[in-house]
Amino acid sequence: MIKARVTVTLKNGVLDPQGKAIENSLGSLGFKGVGSVRQGKVFDVSLDVKDEATAKHDIESMCEKLLANTVIEDYQVEIV
Amino acid sequence: MIKARVTVTLKNGVLDPQGKAIENSLGSLGFKGVGSVRQGKVFDVSLDVKDEATAKHDIESMCEKLLANTVIEDYQVEIV
Repeated sequence: MIKARVTVTLKNGVLDPQGKAIENSLGSLGFKGVGSVRQGKVFDVSLDVKDEATAKHDIESMCEKLLANTVIEDYQVEIV
Repeated sequence: MIKARVTVTLKNGVLDPQGKAIENSLGSLGFKGVGSVRQGKVFDVSLDVKDEATAKHDIESMCEKLLANTVIEDYQVEIV
């Protein structure tokens, strides 16, 4: 069983109202010096394949088809 | 400006219907050998503080107060 972590984040320049809302809330809670907050998603996937190369290839294909919207999001795959 | 990445994931044993739905969708899309999928959140925070220790301390405090629900979620802070 190979475990991988996929991190999906918004591309630079794409507006992130949720991140902005968190940024404002942190300010209201009294945190000083918060520059910017951007929110993304993380998926922990475990795969029953024979090697890491196959796992990485399969997961990239999953990202393209389902996990990420590649028009506005970037993804990063990390075998853990 | 110190940049940090906060990863918030569900604790083991906490049900994750969203992850389960993704798991089923991957199966329907024809991906073989998908064991389990768990979904979490990631926050990229940039902070204007003087050193990494202060940044780490502040961000842990943000997690406890706002970013994570520590009853059901774990968080990990990484300075990048």
